[in-house]
Amino acid sequence: MFKFPSISNTSSTKKMQPDLEAYIEARRNAVDKALHKIFPTASGHAAQIIEAMEYSIFAGGKRLRPILCIAAAEAVGGNSSDVMPVACALELIHTYSLIHDDLPAMDDDDLRRGKPTNHKVFGEALALLAGDGLLTQAFHLMASSGGEPSTDSRVLLKVISTVAEAVGHAGMVGGQVVDMHFQGKQAELDAVQFIHRHKTAALIKASVVSGAMLAGAADRQIEAISLYGEKTGLAFQISDDILDLESDSLTLGKKVGADIRMGKATYPAVVGVEDSKRTQSHLIEDALMALETFDRLADPLRAIARYVIERKK
Amino acid sequence: MFKFPSISNTSSTKKMQPDLEAYIEARRNAVDKALHKIFPTASGHAAQIIEAMEYSIFAGGKRLRPILCIAAAEAVGGNSSDVMPVACALELIHTYSLIHDDLPAMDDDDLRRGKPTNHKVFGEALALLAGDGLLTQAFHLMASSGGEPSTDSRVLLKVISTVAEAVGHAGMVGGQVVDMHFQGKQAELDAVQFIHRHKTAALIKASVVSGAMLAGAADRQIEAISLYGEKTGLAFQISDDILDLESDSLTLGKKVGADIRMGKATYPAVVGVEDSKRTQSHLIEDALMALETFDRLADPLRAIARYVIERKK
Repeated sequence: MFKFPSISNTSSTKKMQPDLEAYIEARRNAVDKALHKIFPTASGHAAQIIEAMEYSIFAGGKRLRPILCIAAAEAVGGNSSDVMPVACALELIHTYSLIHDDLPAMDDDDLRRGKPTNHKVFGEALALLAGDGLLTQAFHLMASSGGEPSTDSRVLLKVISTVAEAVGHAGMVGGQVVDMHFQGKQAELDAVQFIHRHKTAALIKASVVSGAMLAGAADRQIEAISLYGEKTGLAFQISDDILDLESDSLTLGKKVGADIRMGKATYPAVVGVEDSKRTQSHLIEDALMALETFDRLADPLRAIARYVIERKK
Repeated sequence: MFKFPSISNTSSTKKMQPDLEAYIEARRNAVDKALHKIFPTASGHAAQIIEAMEYSIFAGGKRLRPILCIAAAEAVGGNSSDVMPVACALELIHTYSLIHDDLPAMDDDDLRRGKPTNHKVFGEALALLAGDGLLTQAFHLMASSGGEPSTDSRVLLKVISTVAEAVGHAGMVGGQVVDMHFQGKQAELDAVQFIHRHKTAALIKASVVSGAMLAGAADRQIEAISLYGEKTGLAFQISDDILDLESDSLTLGKKVGADIRMGKATYPAVVGVEDSKRTQSHLIEDALMALETFDRLADPLRAIARYVIERKK
């Protein structure tokens, strides 16, 4: 049973932690169960592509985006089952982006979440197509989830449109292009902010906004949750940049120091680690402030925002 | 003015031709105009990706899929403006698939529609992302087209779901995987048929089905148009295989003989050119038969089916 929102309203992160862990574990398990149901048992000609898609989907992801989607729905009184197809779609999209980012033509990474990257196992062609397949399946999943009696078709279209905008050329893909563009070049803070906002924050913001929309949130609630998502997403990417400097490969499940080796435009590279951590704290304060008028149902969202800057991987 | 459906009901292809040309040209112009409106003037950080996306969108495509979508809508009494966003989305999806297919990890093609392929102009990373961006933009376009008063949201969701299924792992992406798998290997006819059905026919079928659905076609009309699309799509891919053998690079706008060089599983490679042409004729007969109960409004669909086996590029 989910008890998290009913705990005493304390600002102590330490007290929050065990509840957050239980909350996240329960939602992660539910997401994993739902993800397993998406793909049929692979056989015949189609077996190869499904195997490649599943490999990366079940390679130990944190399921942060689906959990945020669910937590946002719950924050406005919705429940997880109504948003599960969209929550899963967000994870498929995130996974597609990792597979394509890892390709030799992009970041050329061999290791992801402690396992060989998709193209290292299945070859470049199949990895490329597995990414394409996951992105497409995400939209199929969202568009076919309208059967739920509680889902308004117009809201679902708005959600699909919001997610697509967040991950297309005006969002994640655009951020990735600028990320590649500045590789090995001196970047200014505004370029790094552009990259963070588009490459990472856009999908995280779309995740919480989708959850809130599907749960029937009012416009001003959606606005507040959108702001929460933007700030939390930016803080999350700064964490990523810092972890690449301060963590180790075993904990992180991928090579550390890669950003420096590739001359990536990161927050620490432009303003230093201390300033990056300060910015991060401000972002999380802003994220929590955005939820000020929300009741205890938003406690999981609050706890996740705090976790973002404390995470070790 | 569109006059095509009102011409005398003749089975002579020769007599059809001038009307078909005028019909196709008018629809192609309307599609091109609509496509130009999709992308904003590129500036700032986003300029590069939009330039790469537009390069392939405006590289001289036939617009077959959008035109089929429009023709299917018109065949059941609908009009082109209602289906235009979805028609454009189909072209974005087709273009994304060409960009990814041409990448070095896939077919490694230098020339497409008489111009250097996307990665030859923009590099592999940007070409990969331009494909991702186009696929995503297609779904954004479809999901945001619900503003039209005549569009039922539930129908639009069904269309998005149908298109996504047709181009995902169970459709186009799956066909591409099997196409890559059999490269350089001996393929049986059933493998070639699997490739054709998934790689090509699925999206062509989805194009006409989408048009019909959006125009409010009855279920049995949609079934008939779906069958028409499947048969026409298969015949179209056999044309592609034959043209690769019998055409020349100047006419075709890409290298000919590539299928043989790469050891592709094609219809002519498995059953020979003569049998391929016979199969094609049977497919077009079946496509026309599927439209038997349709009136003259379906004449453009009929003419396009005949054009598919007569085309020179």
